[in-house]
Amino acid sequence: MKKTLLLLSLVAAPALAGEGKWTPQQVLELSPAWLRAQGLQLPPKKLWDPKRGTGLLAGTVNVGGCSGSFIAESGLVITNHHCAFGVIQEHSTPQRDLITQGFLASKREDELPGKGSRVQVPRSFTDVTKDVLASVPEGADDVARYKAIDRKEKELVAECEKRPATRCKVVSFDGGVNYTLVDAVELMDVRLVYAPPRGVGEYGGDEDNWMWPRHTGDFAILRAYTAPDGTSAPFSEKNIPYKAEFFFPLATQGVKPNDFVMVLGYPGVTFRALLAEEMAERQSRYYPAIRDVLGEAIRTLEAVGEKDAAGKIAVASQLKSLHNVHKNAGGQLAGLKRGNIVEKQREAEAAVAVWAQKGGAKWQPALEARAALLVEQSATAKSFDREFLLAVAPRLARGPAVATTVSRMAAERAKPDMERRPEYMEREHVRIKERLEREQKNIFLPAEKQLLLAFVRRAQSLPADARIAAVDKHFGKTFSEKDVAAKIDALYAGTKLLTQDERMKMAGESVGQLEARKDPLLAFGLDLAREQAELDEVKDRRQGASMRLRPEWRKAVLAHAGKPVAPDANGTLRVSFAKVQGYAPRDGAIYTPQTTLSGLLAKNTGKEPFDVPEKVSKVAEAKRFGAWQDTKLKDIPVNFLSDADTTGGNSGSPTVNGKGQLVGVNFDRVWENVANDFGYNPEVARNVNVDVRYILWMLDQVENADALLRELGVRKGAPVAGETR
Amino acid sequence: MKKTLLLLSLVAAPALAGEGKWTPQQVLELSPAWLRAQGLQLPPKKLWDPKRGTGLLAGTVNVGGCSGSFIAESGLVITNHHCAFGVIQEHSTPQRDLITQGFLASKREDELPGKGSRVQVPRSFTDVTKDVLASVPEGADDVARYKAIDRKEKELVAECEKRPATRCKVVSFDGGVNYTLVDAVELMDVRLVYAPPRGVGEYGGDEDNWMWPRHTGDFAILRAYTAPDGTSAPFSEKNIPYKAEFFFPLATQGVKPNDFVMVLGYPGVTFRALLAEEMAERQSRYYPAIRDVLGEAIRTLEAVGEKDAAGKIAVASQLKSLHNVHKNAGGQLAGLKRGNIVEKQREAEAAVAVWAQKGGAKWQPALEARAALLVEQSATAKSFDREFLLAVAPRLARGPAVATTVSRMAAERAKPDMERRPEYMEREHVRIKERLEREQKNIFLPAEKQLLLAFVRRAQSLPADARIAAVDKHFGKTFSEKDVAAKIDALYAGTKLLTQDERMKMAGESVGQLEARKDPLLAFGLDLAREQAELDEVKDRRQGASMRLRPEWRKAVLAHAGKPVAPDANGTLRVSFAKVQGYAPRDGAIYTPQTTLSGLLAKNTGKEPFDVPEKVSKVAEAKRFGAWQDTKLKDIPVNFLSDADTTGGNSGSPTVNGKGQLVGVNFDRVWENVANDFGYNPEVARNVNVDVRYILWMLDQVENADALLRELGVRKGAPVAGETR
Repeated sequence: MKKTLLLLSLVAAPALAGEGKWTPQQVLELSPAWLRAQGLQLPPKKLWDPKRGTGLLAGTVNVGGCSGSFIAESGLVITNHHCAFGVIQEHSTPQRDLITQGFLASKREDELPGKGSRVQVPRSFTDVTKDVLASVPEGADDVARYKAIDRKEKELVAECEKRPATRCKVVSFDGGVNYTLVDAVELMDVRLVYAPPRGVGEYGGDEDNWMWPRHTGDFAILRAYTAPDGTSAPFSEKNIPYKAEFFFPLATQGVKPNDFVMVLGYPGVTFRALLAEEMAERQSRYYPAIRDVLGEAIRTLEAVGEKDAAGKIAVASQLKSLHNVHKNAGGQLAGLKRGNIVEKQREAEAAVAVWAQKGGAKWQPALEARAALLVEQSATAKSFDREFLLAVAPRLARGPAVATTVSRMAAERAKPDMERRPEYMEREHVRIKERLEREQKNIFLPAEKQLLLAFVRRAQSLPADARIAAVDKHFGKTFSEKDVAAKIDALYAGTKLLTQDERMKMAGESVGQLEARKDPLLAFGLDLAREQAELDEVKDRRQGASMRLRPEWRKAVLAHAGKPVAPDANGTLRVSFAKVQGYAPRDGAIYTPQTTLSGLLAKNTGKEPFDVPEKVSKVAEAKRFGAWQDTKLKDIPVNFLSDADTTGGNSGSPTVNGKGQLVGVNFDRVWENVANDFGYNPEVARNVNVDVRYILWMLDQVENADALLRELGVRKGAPVAGETR
Repeated sequence: MKKTLLLLSLVAAPALAGEGKWTPQQVLELSPAWLRAQGLQLPPKKLWDPKRGTGLLAGTVNVGGCSGSFIAESGLVITNHHCAFGVIQEHSTPQRDLITQGFLASKREDELPGKGSRVQVPRSFTDVTKDVLASVPEGADDVARYKAIDRKEKELVAECEKRPATRCKVVSFDGGVNYTLVDAVELMDVRLVYAPPRGVGEYGGDEDNWMWPRHTGDFAILRAYTAPDGTSAPFSEKNIPYKAEFFFPLATQGVKPNDFVMVLGYPGVTFRALLAEEMAERQSRYYPAIRDVLGEAIRTLEAVGEKDAAGKIAVASQLKSLHNVHKNAGGQLAGLKRGNIVEKQREAEAAVAVWAQKGGAKWQPALEARAALLVEQSATAKSFDREFLLAVAPRLARGPAVATTVSRMAAERAKPDMERRPEYMEREHVRIKERLEREQKNIFLPAEKQLLLAFVRRAQSLPADARIAAVDKHFGKTFSEKDVAAKIDALYAGTKLLTQDERMKMAGESVGQLEARKDPLLAFGLDLAREQAELDEVKDRRQGASMRLRPEWRKAVLAHAGKPVAPDANGTLRVSFAKVQGYAPRDGAIYTPQTTLSGLLAKNTGKEPFDVPEKVSKVAEAKRFGAWQDTKLKDIPVNFLSDADTTGGNSGSPTVNGKGQLVGVNFDRVWENVANDFGYNPEVARNVNVDVRYILWMLDQVENADALLRELGVRKGAPVAGETR
């Protein structure tokens, strides 16, 4: 077996088994024998049929930025609890607290429609590289290159979205070696079928976030509906369940250590195609800046929350998100160091360069492109502090955040839609306004003022050649706490931006109208927005340069590899081939790949975030395991690890076995694996999944969700047809 | 093999392999075949020869409350770094900072004498049960019983210590089933030979205390000297190295997982013979009170330290000790819960009771004794809060602590020596005065005052029928922060107790002299001391009751067991038979039993407590392992775990293999194993040892301590005669 594997690896197998977020098309380029040896029992063409342009992988859907999957023909979708949180929250009232209690629709009519809930089902992938590149005029400079490509992409999307209920985007692979038009059907009537209580779905909360061992039941079940004729339609009582062409039946036998699994989904963004020096910049500047600036904001918000109960609630959501990013940055730094990732990239790059040099004239452009990228990089590094502050810091206080959003929307609205920045195009307006509306509950003045004060203090310490003009204008050039605090007080005393009605009115006004308001906070926002827009132009030029240079270099990297190389994540459908396995987090410690209900109970303190709901602990303590006990563990497996290659966006990803059956739902990576975004480290690359048997146990033994279990083709205690347990 | 073991276990093997701190005499009662099967290669009589009353176990010595062992005939003793800290500190100056740098005597004359350093070598164990029990007069009540036994013990000790350089004590086993007179030679000239730098000896500091994985080189080497005629003598240049009859040569091949080891030493005190209800009292009152009261003191001292650098230094030592006790109490609570220890004791007790009832009249006294102990227990529980405060809390602030010490010493001095409480007898006076002298550097007024305020607040909230009269008298009956703070200010403003000279003068004065001083803090101390003395009388009565009742019950327990039962620790020489093995600290995690130099480097932050000295990291990073590499780990093993049955007092215990060679030095237990004092839980009962190969690597590769290595019979890279590697 080992020998076969070695031989096969010369054909078209990746360097490391778990490495690679493969595109559907690439699955066909990988050696079928290697895939079989890994554990894939289906023919690869079942996963993706190039002739049809679809396959089983298309059972994986995009659920508002998360991943999800169909688990029954009748439109049932499984995703993470935290991905379905919006709809759960929407229907929660103090009288009927679905967040705390969870929800189970006892019959179809009880399923709860979600206002913003959408599911995108992949329809087609079209190579538009020639179209896109042909759009760049002869002799275009980098700004013109960027604008031409940007415009072309928008045109392709607009054309594509002329079909009803269609969402399209153009994405680049390998920094622009290829461009693909991705086209999906958007289902607009998506309803909540089942959500576990928060004590299950968020068990461990922020404390366990990114951590292992883990005991979180982070899953929820939705159902997509269509019009009676099967077309996508908004909510209507006449709608019928969506009929899924592809779905993943539940694997009632679950998984065990060393089992093969595939994690499917929509990973968002990774950075493995960056040059080593670009990675080093992230390591030396970007993540430390995140740690510093967000760390300060976290301390501020926590202190505010300790003094004021209402303030605590208002800042809770922002604090949670700051914690997440701050912790992530810590993990990136630790992982970059642990995996020697920059060093390894430097070595890999050097190997490609040596090889390319031997290749003579053919790869000369690649080598030149790399050299030019390095020049770009060192130029960018110089303006880092100002740009970081301008982009990140004013968004920390909600006031400046909404002020700049309103201002930028107004400025962009003055342009034809196709010339606007993508995030301010007409198609985004509904989302932006929803966001502006939601902000109301996050505003807490004492927190606001302190965050803005910290921003001004930082901005005023920038060097003379890299100032933020808006800060200089509104707060002066040197920091005096008393003075700045007084100006901030005046800003907030005079603004109407934080009043819901007024803010929403402003969201529809022109720059002139906004200026005429003479609202002090808005005036600051308008000035900041202008500087941000200028910075965007600078970034466009850099982006244009990257679009020109990076593909050249990447072509050399790909040719040097001589076998399929999985491209960086870009929000498109991918699959990772993996194994269930634990890891050694540090000297003297080993993490096993499975956790259990006993472990969940052992963590129970009765206090958030470790508060097991009574209906769960009652059944768990009585060891009423039903048919879902793992014979080896003699317990219900709760979470498991695999060495799949995942990142943000993979939340809710189906984890399926070699037969294409669902064995789990991915919901996190381990702390040691955060820097995976820069490079795959097989020793610690582990993603965290909810075990399907925990899901089944919850539905069966805790919730008695018989109808749902029948619909899922699962009958208590009995094996699924064709399966042995 | 398994079958043999099962059969043997019916003879005289303990219930759990690692359980039991066996007395030297008990080793002979255990089945030799079982010991052989465990891994003991020596004949048990080599460990302890009942005819001679000594054996290899006597190579284990008491080093000022710690354990230690001879590792060469030439008087070399190995113990923990933290046990030798006194002598290291004594010779440290800012110019020659032995604490930070470590110390190696390049020749014998350079070895550093330690003022208070003592080594006690066991000489004999004499059963004095009959003598002790015969001392109780017919019809004595419990107070009289206690006093008679106490007096008898003192007489036996006084008689025993008439021999020169002899330290004796009478200890009871099984709550008084047996009494033994323990007799040891005290060597008074003990010198420092080697101490690693603090970055090795205390690596991980408080943060890693009680923790695993661990990377601490907690060892130091001393040498005992005698007069030229071989008798014990104080330091003199004419002295010669002590000639050790028994010693443990270093096992250069080290240990591997599953190896048999013995941990020898002087474990201090455990509580396994308590009734379940008595354990429950510790769980429900005592440890929670420690957590509460000490937790508050820790927060106070930490806050004080943050505001004042000098204060931080002054309170550091107390804070360290508070942290240790506070963390220990947390571990006791967690472990009692985790191991269901009280429940198990309740069941075991019930089984003995059922058996005893069947035994008819014979065991009637045992059953009655148990019932009476339970009555005692519930009576004691009622006065818990007052007694806890009176005993523990006034010692938190140094002022009241020294005030009560001085007062009690004066009161006890008025009695004949033999009637004093043991801790205030003449033989303890030098130690008490040393302690009073050392207090000077711990005193920091702002901390003092806050700790005393907290004590007064707690005391003033006691119920009317359980007040502390001294507090009522000096601070009034109800708490008013302003009022009490003012009184405390006055107390400290008017006292001379915190002046070194005055305090030491007071230490020699009578109660009358002390009273005549009209020193306000001392006056409070005198009143507190009187109440403490009254409480001691109450405790004497309880103690007398226990001496009367507990042996009756324990006799039934021992008879019911039908095989040797290791008695609770009581500071006497013991041996535990164990295996090198890891454990599962919690669901999803496994701790392996060995850590390595690579793991040590991975923890290195360059900042205390994780600051690897450069001379160590240089050699470690270069992987200059010398002859000490573990072939499987391909690294230097630093620490290892075994499932030995240890407790406080086992610090510095030699851990030896089946041949009697030293494979490590015990220095801690793991957090999950703290409640081991109440019951042995085989799943988590793990002690932490420094691996002998780390010691050898330090001496060889880092320190180039050739002469010392030659004396230890170790030659670089070459196996010890008769050993294979």
